[in-house]
Amino acid sequence: ILIDSTKYKQPKLTLVGAGPGDPDLITVKGMKAIANADVVLYDALVDKKLLDYAKDDAVKLYVGKRGGMRSVKQDQINLLIVKYAYEYGHVVRLKGGDPFVFGRGHEEIEYADNFGLSTEIIPGITSAISVPALQGIPVTRRGISESFWVITGSTKSGKLSRDIELAAQSTATIVVLMGMKNLSEIVSIYKRIGISETPVGIIQNGSTSKEVTGFGTMDNILDVVSEKNIKSPAIIVIGKVVETHPELAEVLSEINHY
Amino acid sequence: ILIDSTKYKQPKLTLVGAGPGDPDLITVKGMKAIANADVVLYDALVDKKLLDYAKDDAVKLYVGKRGGMRSVKQDQINLLIVKYAYEYGHVVRLKGGDPFVFGRGHEEIEYADNFGLSTEIIPGITSAISVPALQGIPVTRRGISESFWVITGSTKSGKLSRDIELAAQSTATIVVLMGMKNLSEIVSIYKRIGISETPVGIIQNGSTSKEVTGFGTMDNILDVVSEKNIKSPAIIVIGKVVETHPELAEVLSEINHY
Repeated sequence: ILIDSTKYKQPKLTLVGAGPGDPDLITVKGMKAIANADVVLYDALVDKKLLDYAKDDAVKLYVGKRGGMRSVKQDQINLLIVKYAYEYGHVVRLKGGDPFVFGRGHEEIEYADNFGLSTEIIPGITSAISVPALQGIPVTRRGISESFWVITGSTKSGKLSRDIELAAQSTATIVVLMGMKNLSEIVSIYKRIGISETPVGIIQNGSTSKEVTGFGTMDNILDVVSEKNIKSPAIIVIGKVVETHPELAEVLSEINHY
Repeated sequence: ILIDSTKYKQPKLTLVGAGPGDPDLITVKGMKAIANADVVLYDALVDKKLLDYAKDDAVKLYVGKRGGMRSVKQDQINLLIVKYAYEYGHVVRLKGGDPFVFGRGHEEIEYADNFGLSTEIIPGITSAISVPALQGIPVTRRGISESFWVITGSTKSGKLSRDIELAAQSTATIVVLMGMKNLSEIVSIYKRIGISETPVGIIQNGSTSKEVTGFGTMDNILDVVSEKNIKSPAIIVIGKVVETHPELAEVLSEINHY
C-alpha cells in the first residue's frame, strides 16, 4: 500500500468541555482546539455558535440526543471518533459541561488510546458549580458550607445513587445532576431523615436565555416544580447556601407568614 | 458636590475565575472581562500573562500571598474593590480556579452589593476537577464512581473538615483542596476505618510546567510525598478512580511484588 505522506495526518482526539450553555463559557484553549480541528463531534447541550470557531472545511457532526429520538449510542460514538481520526486527523469531541463530570469522557479517551490515537483533555466549566453560581449561589461559603458533593441522579442502573442518603447527613452542599426524574425520591430521603426544612434550588437551562428557576424547601419543592413546570435538563442544589438566593428568602418569609 | 459626568463611571465588580494555572484555561468570557476592565485585582495563583488582555492604562494590582509575606487581608480586598470601583469604574477581581469554590468570592460579591456596585460572576475551571483530569483521572467514571466530594482541608478554624470522615465511607471520589498540612490526619482517618488500601493521588502545581505528582495508597502516600518533596498548593484526590493513573498501577504492582 502506498501512503501519500503529504496527505497523512496524525490521528488525534481532543476532548473539549463546552461549559454549561453560554458559548462564551468555553475556555480559550477549547476555542483554539475547535479552530484546529478537522472533525468536530458535538453533543445536544452544546451551543452551535461554537462551531463557528471551526475551519470551513471541518466535518461537523451532531451525535447527541434530540427530542424524542434515540441518541447515538456510546459504542457508536467511540467508533466514530477512531474512524474519523484515521480518516481526517484531529477530532475534537465537544461535550456540554466538563467531559469528566458524568460525561463518559474517560471511556472515550480510553477507547481512543487503545486504537493508538494521541489524546488530550481540555476541561470545561461544569454546570454543577457554575449554574448555581450564576444564580448567586456559592457551592461553598466560609462558615456555612465547607464542602460540596456532586452526585448523578441517574446511575448506570437508572436508579438514584445511594450516596445521596449519606450526603444528606453531612454539612456538604449537594448538587444533583440529571436528577429530575428522581426528585420525589430525593425529597422522601430528606423527609425520612427528618430534615425536610432543607433549602433546595432547581435551575433548568442554566446560563442560557431559557433559564427557569424554582426555590423552596424539601417540604414544598415538588409543588414549586410542578407550578413552574420545570423539566430536565436541570440542576438540583441542596443545602444552607441556597438561602443566599433572594427568591428563597421570599418563599421562606411567606411560609413564616401563613 | 459637582460631579463631572463625562468622567463618571458606573461602579462595577466582575468576579472572574482564572482556572487552575494554564492561562489558556480561562474562559472566553473571562478574557473579555479583563479586556474591558479599568482595574484588575489579581491573586497569587493567577498567571500574569492574563494581564496582557487588559488595557494598557488599566490599574493592575496584586493582592495575593507571596512567599513568606502576609497576604492582603480579606477585609482590605473588599474595601479595595469598592474604592477602585467608585474611582475607576469596572473592577475585575481575578481569582485562581473558580471564585465560588473556597475562593471567598461570595463574600466579595455580597460586600460590593451592599455598597451599590453592580456585580457579575464569571465562573472558572476549578482545579478540583481539572487538575486530576489533566493527569487522566476522571472524578466520575460509570461503574466506578457515581459522585465526587470536594472538601477544604483547611476550614475557618484551620482544622480538617469533619465531612472527610463521612466521605471516606461513601463511594464518592474525594478531592481535598488546601489539605497538605492535614494529610497525615486524613491518612489516620482511613487507617482507623480500616480502608488504608484506598488509592490516593497528589498533584502540586497542576496544569503548569512545574507540576509534580505522587501516587500511592493511604498506607504509603506520606512516604511518597516526602520522597518527592511535594508541597502546597496541591490537590489530593482519593478513591478508586485514581487507579486509572499509570503511575499508581506501577506502584501497586511493586507492592504486590515485594
